[in-house]
Amino acid sequence: MATPDQIREVVARYAKRLTAGSASDIADLYTADAVVEDPVGTPPHEGRDAIEKFYATVCQADLTAEHQGVRVAGDSAAFGLTVVAKAGDQTITVNPIDVMTFDSDGKITSMRAYWSQDDMTVE
Amino acid sequence: MATPDQIREVVARYAKRLTAGSASDIADLYTADAVVEDPVGTPPHEGRDAIEKFYATVCQADLTAEHQGVRVAGDSAAFGLTVVAKAGDQTITVNPIDVMTFDSDGKITSMRAYWSQDDMTVE
Repeated sequence: MATPDQIREVVARYAKRLTAGSASDIADLYTADAVVEDPVGTPPHEGRDAIEKFYATVCQADLTAEHQGVRVAGDSAAFGLTVVAKAGDQTITVNPIDVMTFDSDGKITSMRAYWSQDDMTVE
Repeated sequence: MATPDQIREVVARYAKRLTAGSASDIADLYTADAVVEDPVGTPPHEGRDAIEKFYATVCQADLTAEHQGVRVAGDSAAFGLTVVAKAGDQTITVNPIDVMTFDSDGKITSMRAYWSQDDMTVE
């Protein structure tokens, strides 16, 4: 099992790569058969290719991401995330709670993002 | 599917009953075959009887619970919880992130609490 320190490190790296990395950099944090459901209740993106494609869409905007209050439990982490996306003259802020699971090497095996329109502001 | 308002209402009621309700009152919020894993990574409590027994142990301390930042997504909610437990001259504060799923009537079908010793203080 990944250690709590390993898990916290990957969560920090995830926020950093959302801010400054490519879709491929972000997808590299996941296992080959990982699953991303963002937001929870929408069709999941299964496997590295689908996940990279998902982040390629997300990363079309200029993103800044910060994580808060990481809780580690077993092979899992839950944390708040603030993502500010600038696209054109619009600034969209989304505040999900993300839940991730990890394999023994600290690769992300799943990510589920809990949020809705209620957790989003557009300016 | 339960509405976001229904889900928010049940989350608020859960915090209220942790503070002022009995183990049976809390277990009443769950379906008969619900599953509670608290903290995530420990053996789950399956079914209403096991869940009531779990809360009976938890409620031996004098609890005050407050929920924060509820995110609703599909049939699920994720939120921060601050639980202050007074037992004898000790005050234990735990700050999990809880994730719940709900059935169409707004009953809780599962609860998973993400926390470890790192999210706990003892005074």
